[in-house]
Amino acid sequence: MGKSIYFFANGRADGKADMKELLGGKGANLAEMTNLGIPVPPGFTITTEVCDQYSKNKNKFPADLSKEIDKNIARLQNVMDAELGGSDNPLLVSVRSGAASSMPGMMDTVLNLGLNPDSVEGLIKKTGNERFAWDAYRRFITMFSDVVKGIDRQLFEVEIEKQKKKAKIENDTDLSVKQLKELVDKYFDIYKKSTGKKFPTSPRKQLDEAIEAVFKSWNNPRAIKYRELYDIKGLLGTAVTVQTMVFGNMGDNSATGVCFTRNPSTGENKFYGEFLLNAQGEDVVAGIRTPDPIEDLKKVMPDAYERLIGIKDNLEKHYKDVQDMEFTIQDGKLYMLQTRNGKRTAQAAVKIAVDLEKEKLIDKKTAIQRVEPGQLDQLLHPTFDPKAKRQVIATGLPASPGAATGKVVFSAEEAEELGSKNQKVILVRVETSPEDIGGMYAAQGILTARGGMTSHAAVVARGMGKCCVAGCGSIQVNYSKKEFSVSGKVVKDGDFISLDGSTGEVMLGELATIEVKLSGDFSKLMKWADSYRRLKIRTNADTPQDAKRAREFGAEGIGLCRTEHMFFDEDRIGNVRQMILVAGDVKSLEAEIKDKNVELEKLPKDKADALKTELKKVEKKFKDCEQLYTGALKKLLPAQRSDFEKIFKEMDGLPVNIRLLDPPLHEFLPKEKELQTELAKKMKIDVEDIRKKVESLAELNPMLGHRGCRLGITYPEIYQMQAQAIMEAACNVKKKGIKVIPEIMIPLITTEEEMRVLRELVEVVAEDVIKKKGVKVDYKIGTMIETPRAALAANQVAKEAEFFSFGTNDLTQMTFGYSRDDVGSFVPEFTKRGILEKDPFEVLDQNGVGQLVKMGIKKGKLTRPTLKVGICGEHGGEPSSVKFCHDIGLDYVSCSPFRVPIARLAAALSALDQ
Amino acid sequence: MGKSIYFFANGRADGKADMKELLGGKGANLAEMTNLGIPVPPGFTITTEVCDQYSKNKNKFPADLSKEIDKNIARLQNVMDAELGGSDNPLLVSVRSGAASSMPGMMDTVLNLGLNPDSVEGLIKKTGNERFAWDAYRRFITMFSDVVKGIDRQLFEVEIEKQKKKAKIENDTDLSVKQLKELVDKYFDIYKKSTGKKFPTSPRKQLDEAIEAVFKSWNNPRAIKYRELYDIKGLLGTAVTVQTMVFGNMGDNSATGVCFTRNPSTGENKFYGEFLLNAQGEDVVAGIRTPDPIEDLKKVMPDAYERLIGIKDNLEKHYKDVQDMEFTIQDGKLYMLQTRNGKRTAQAAVKIAVDLEKEKLIDKKTAIQRVEPGQLDQLLHPTFDPKAKRQVIATGLPASPGAATGKVVFSAEEAEELGSKNQKVILVRVETSPEDIGGMYAAQGILTARGGMTSHAAVVARGMGKCCVAGCGSIQVNYSKKEFSVSGKVVKDGDFISLDGSTGEVMLGELATIEVKLSGDFSKLMKWADSYRRLKIRTNADTPQDAKRAREFGAEGIGLCRTEHMFFDEDRIGNVRQMILVAGDVKSLEAEIKDKNVELEKLPKDKADALKTELKKVEKKFKDCEQLYTGALKKLLPAQRSDFEKIFKEMDGLPVNIRLLDPPLHEFLPKEKELQTELAKKMKIDVEDIRKKVESLAELNPMLGHRGCRLGITYPEIYQMQAQAIMEAACNVKKKGIKVIPEIMIPLITTEEEMRVLRELVEVVAEDVIKKKGVKVDYKIGTMIETPRAALAANQVAKEAEFFSFGTNDLTQMTFGYSRDDVGSFVPEFTKRGILEKDPFEVLDQNGVGQLVKMGIKKGKLTRPTLKVGICGEHGGEPSSVKFCHDIGLDYVSCSPFRVPIARLAAALSALDQ
Repeated sequence: MGKSIYFFANGRADGKADMKELLGGKGANLAEMTNLGIPVPPGFTITTEVCDQYSKNKNKFPADLSKEIDKNIARLQNVMDAELGGSDNPLLVSVRSGAASSMPGMMDTVLNLGLNPDSVEGLIKKTGNERFAWDAYRRFITMFSDVVKGIDRQLFEVEIEKQKKKAKIENDTDLSVKQLKELVDKYFDIYKKSTGKKFPTSPRKQLDEAIEAVFKSWNNPRAIKYRELYDIKGLLGTAVTVQTMVFGNMGDNSATGVCFTRNPSTGENKFYGEFLLNAQGEDVVAGIRTPDPIEDLKKVMPDAYERLIGIKDNLEKHYKDVQDMEFTIQDGKLYMLQTRNGKRTAQAAVKIAVDLEKEKLIDKKTAIQRVEPGQLDQLLHPTFDPKAKRQVIATGLPASPGAATGKVVFSAEEAEELGSKNQKVILVRVETSPEDIGGMYAAQGILTARGGMTSHAAVVARGMGKCCVAGCGSIQVNYSKKEFSVSGKVVKDGDFISLDGSTGEVMLGELATIEVKLSGDFSKLMKWADSYRRLKIRTNADTPQDAKRAREFGAEGIGLCRTEHMFFDEDRIGNVRQMILVAGDVKSLEAEIKDKNVELEKLPKDKADALKTELKKVEKKFKDCEQLYTGALKKLLPAQRSDFEKIFKEMDGLPVNIRLLDPPLHEFLPKEKELQTELAKKMKIDVEDIRKKVESLAELNPMLGHRGCRLGITYPEIYQMQAQAIMEAACNVKKKGIKVIPEIMIPLITTEEEMRVLRELVEVVAEDVIKKKGVKVDYKIGTMIETPRAALAANQVAKEAEFFSFGTNDLTQMTFGYSRDDVGSFVPEFTKRGILEKDPFEVLDQNGVGQLVKMGIKKGKLTRPTLKVGICGEHGGEPSSVKFCHDIGLDYVSCSPFRVPIARLAAALSALDQ
Repeated sequence: MGKSIYFFANGRADGKADMKELLGGKGANLAEMTNLGIPVPPGFTITTEVCDQYSKNKNKFPADLSKEIDKNIARLQNVMDAELGGSDNPLLVSVRSGAASSMPGMMDTVLNLGLNPDSVEGLIKKTGNERFAWDAYRRFITMFSDVVKGIDRQLFEVEIEKQKKKAKIENDTDLSVKQLKELVDKYFDIYKKSTGKKFPTSPRKQLDEAIEAVFKSWNNPRAIKYRELYDIKGLLGTAVTVQTMVFGNMGDNSATGVCFTRNPSTGENKFYGEFLLNAQGEDVVAGIRTPDPIEDLKKVMPDAYERLIGIKDNLEKHYKDVQDMEFTIQDGKLYMLQTRNGKRTAQAAVKIAVDLEKEKLIDKKTAIQRVEPGQLDQLLHPTFDPKAKRQVIATGLPASPGAATGKVVFSAEEAEELGSKNQKVILVRVETSPEDIGGMYAAQGILTARGGMTSHAAVVARGMGKCCVAGCGSIQVNYSKKEFSVSGKVVKDGDFISLDGSTGEVMLGELATIEVKLSGDFSKLMKWADSYRRLKIRTNADTPQDAKRAREFGAEGIGLCRTEHMFFDEDRIGNVRQMILVAGDVKSLEAEIKDKNVELEKLPKDKADALKTELKKVEKKFKDCEQLYTGALKKLLPAQRSDFEKIFKEMDGLPVNIRLLDPPLHEFLPKEKELQTELAKKMKIDVEDIRKKVESLAELNPMLGHRGCRLGITYPEIYQMQAQAIMEAACNVKKKGIKVIPEIMIPLITTEEEMRVLRELVEVVAEDVIKKKGVKVDYKIGTMIETPRAALAANQVAKEAEFFSFGTNDLTQMTFGYSRDDVGSFVPEFTKRGILEKDPFEVLDQNGVGQLVKMGIKKGKLTRPTLKVGICGEHGGEPSSVKFCHDIGLDYVSCSPFRVPIARLAAALSALDQ
């Protein structure tokens, strides 16, 4: 361990701004300001290393710390010409925590330390203000008792209230000296009763105990929780700054305040802040009195104000960023107690960054580094009015950001119905399925009881840019009663609730929301970002609307266009279902015919007649089924083609990656009996046939079932139809002068052979369309790498695939063995307990899944050096994952439209970070 | 291409036995026999390379083949002093196929080639037997028409029947020369009508066409199917052997027959075979006449018999293996037409191998290489009487070998009930669940409509050594009607069916079965195998009975003891369910108490009373729940402990690897309403509570859900109880002098942190038990590597694990994204079409899953060089997978008891193969 204490006073400090790790943010900046010649009350900072030693040493001071403290106190007394506990010119100090990362309000502070029966007299002598001195004493006892000894603050508050009642006064400030003295005695009693000991009179002892309390507060549950929440890791502990007290409450020539060099909420370049006359800092924070705007200081203390303006300009220029400062004016003299880079809203961050560049304080690179990509969500989605009161009844996963408020409905149909009447609704489901898409679109927000960050509800909602709280396990949904209950409360159909998609909170009632508009600064910053990034940013979009929006957000192509959502349109789902109901029969009848023909060959001629008759029957049945099957596919073809044409038009000049049908067929059939009956009526078939089909298609683990390319192999006609629709659409729009770059993606490949069979199938169709249409369209055929096996065998798969798109959602599911729909029961607990650092569906697991991605790229490029590689899982819009994608050399990331700006910025920062 | 034709005659041949790839098995062995001086009719063999050229050359002969054929025919004519088509001493030849692998009956043969109106007269002259010559001509026309021209053989049979009817005779042999001549004319007409051409009279043209027909037959559908079925790969094609005809049908001094040097069915060292007097080879095969046993030949032709005995002894000594031979005696002279290593039953294979070693013909290494490990299944399970007639109604997956016959029942309860009355039953289910274990045990065999080779039914049945046909998708089970239907047939409750677990066949009626006893030879061979193998063989066993049986089969420890099956005992399941029903409540109430306490801290004292009352209520509820929870666990503890004690006793001196609870909790709760109601009554709680709990625990993809170590982390008490039971049992039996080597296995690990938390949890309990019991037991804590992530992060996981057991069932599921319960709908089609070479649940996928296993070993040992590594997936009993496990350096494989001998042999062969 190095030097344990850093002193600062009168323009000279041992530390400086870049020693935050050691001195904490506060200590380092106090030193820096001191060195800048800014008036800072002298003091010293005990390092974070000491805190670390203290914790490791079972909460004991390192050997020579006391000696060091003694030395520094002596130095401080010397500088201040005052004495700790002195009855003439007593030195009072504050003892404050300060870690390298700001953790506001999380750790403890003691003010006015050094008061005892002697020094209170000294303070009176020095200030000539008896009331002030006793009030300071009272405050110190309260704070010390609370912070150092953990005595309930309430006990002291009760006494003060009693005293005021007795004296028939309203404000604390109206208490007389006598009353304050009585109060101090009462406080001593409380302390004695609680601790069994007398309140310490030795200032040196007070100091040791206060320092220990600050050290301990590093590991209090609040602080631990805060670090967890804000992902603060790798710090040694908190520093402790012991600093000469200055008082803003020494009369009307004193004041205290906090201020920002610019408006942290809007970013406007205007001095911003507030102050209280005759008050201590804690009064501003506590909000007992309403502070005045900082401009008013000019009127009451023009000199101090002038000096403050000078200092703030100086600090902003010095730090080249917005500063958040605390100051105190004691008897007309200004002291700076803290400065740090100011926290700001996303809107402010963007404006400030662009303005600072304009003012030549920073360059473009620095400007974009001043905005956190994750923050941009705020700009792209409505938020709640921060003043609105929240009555939180449950908290789920923050699955898709935004703020939504509306009437509760429990079915997609209801949502669509009320939506069409312009009513705002929140769709509440146990979980959603592709059938609910219409209702999700009509709703303001979606709340589900089950499913994780990449469940159907979450993925679709993010795609729509719609607020969603998913996997809210504490709510019990009862569809038949049309209500949900949560910890005793019952919310009925039609009741208003509000969802915060950024926190996962579910609230009772209608909360006011604020819509944010994108500024010119935003586009400017995004363009700067674009000039630095190497990664291309694509979007996951299934509709022309989504494609258009994503392009507006800067998407450079579609990285994933899912075709199955298109199947759920009301005028299509009928045909889809017809296709599914007969598809299996076509196959089994075909097999039966083959078998019977083989049998027939073996039979002597005279014994074959019966079998021949039977065979004819089967052949007839087969023909009927086949007609229904191909008939349904034929009807789907033009619908899909027109979808693709529209999307190609929106994406003129940019690549469009279309994934062939992926979900298992049973997803398209209704599971509920009533819906089955309805469908049977519509299709004029027996409901029992539907029930049987649903049963026979049911799977225990559909995620690992008959889906993706497995469908394409067993039902080649479906993929043929889709390939035809894509290529016909491409040819049609190309004829109209649109530049079309189709990429046809085969999902869920595990082996080279699967890829070969399906590549050939698609190629045959594509070449045929090109020939017939007489239009030459360049297209690529590739695959999604989403099973671990595909990544492991990427060298083989790449023989048949021109591109890989890593489907990291499914890849995460299979690599971890986590069903994204089922992990709600344990993943939150795992992340909370640190067993998982992060939910791997939110943040790409670089250590496991990431290895497979790296392996897939390396092996794939070994076989095919021109292989195009991208990612289309939800991770494509998460900043740390984008950085990983940049680092391992992917060509692009693809994410939902509303995450495109985040990905653009994250990609730029990754490039700069290299 | 090298030499295209290999000649053989009179003691000298161009080829030899090791040229099978080039000359086919038949051609190579004819050459070898010729060189050995054994009487073989002269001839020549066209190589497989020529066949390959022919196919590649669009079915055209290579340029100079005709010239080569001419040369060899000339040589043959010279040797035989006969002329093809000659009217004096005509040369007749056979044209036969023969590939490197035997494919009996799959390809085509033409006999008596060379006959035409001239040579038939020559044949009469030469033999003096007019009837014989015309009969030979008739046979040749039929064969040529059928084989070379594809004319329906039936057409010729009809004519012969007509002729016999007309002549009022019964046997073909009674046809007169005149009638035969008429028949030949009729045959010419049929040929003309079918082909539009005259039957070829040029023997050279006949020969070319016959050779082409044999080449083509290599790619006929039957042959392709056969190669698929027997996994014959990498061959160029078939060779063609053209050989001088000898006739076994030239009178009562002629005969033809097939024989084995030893009994291929029992292995007994006794000449075995049969013959027909005055017959051609095809008559023996066709089974029109019943042949006589080979011993009888001694009586009718003692000289020829004597020579045959000499030759067979010579051949067996030469080839050092049982020979399967064909011979013909023409006019008292013996000719050998074929010899090859004889196919044999498993029983015979074992006896022959041991006997040959005893006779010093082969050494021990060779002996064990003479038995295919996969064959041993036959020895360990009953089989059907091969003579029993099979009425196959459906075919499923051959999930667990054996033969079973019994009455159909549709529930485990019924199976148990009838089983207790000593009735034989077959349990038919859509799929089985752990609740069905009792019924499965009571049944002779199990038939399921769903599920793959590693579904619950398959795994459990194999463990029990019980016959099982799984995933028989064509059957429709109707529980309420108590029947199943399959292609129109309905099988009801109580009807008899039979299952062949080795073929997957489901048959109507009661088939006779044969039980096989293990011979002393078997143990001898196994011991020889053990002396060569490096891999240890363990078993997957959950009960003392299984453990005992496996040890008898040679298991050297338990590689996987699943603890969940123990939970299903009637006297335990109640406690298990009680535990599950309250476990969640305990957790949520605990959380509620914490939350309320935090809230309480924030509240002013006067406002806290209401909350305090509420808190007390919650605390009371919590206590009740906790009591129920720990109460249930306490009752389970002694039951589990006693299980483990019994297993440890059976495994005295051998390691026992016990896996902690793995399946999701909902597997233990009844899904059906009736069973829920029953349970509610028993537990005296509201059925609605059970329904809700079942609903809340339900998962969309339980395979990827809240199971394995995830349970251990969220419900630590369960794993604590299990660890305690294991360690107490270990201490108890050690006190009794039993050598106990427990290994505690944590399932489904994905991260180091999970492993750390659970290793610590188990360790604390284990040390505590050891301390309390005062018995020092060495134990290991390790994990199952069954998620891809665990393999990828094996270097980290190994920090906390002392052993890895690769759970290749689940690892395959996750690597492929295949749910073993759902792949029935496409994997069979994939393997059939060659998209998958093998079902990866049967044969370890070395290319994908195998890579993860290799990576896991390498990374694991990097961190912990002493890491013990094994495999406990079903692949541990599959020979090619065992070889892979040997090659990559695993310490052991573990498989179900009945596969232990297979694994022992396979492991030995792997070691010898290196």
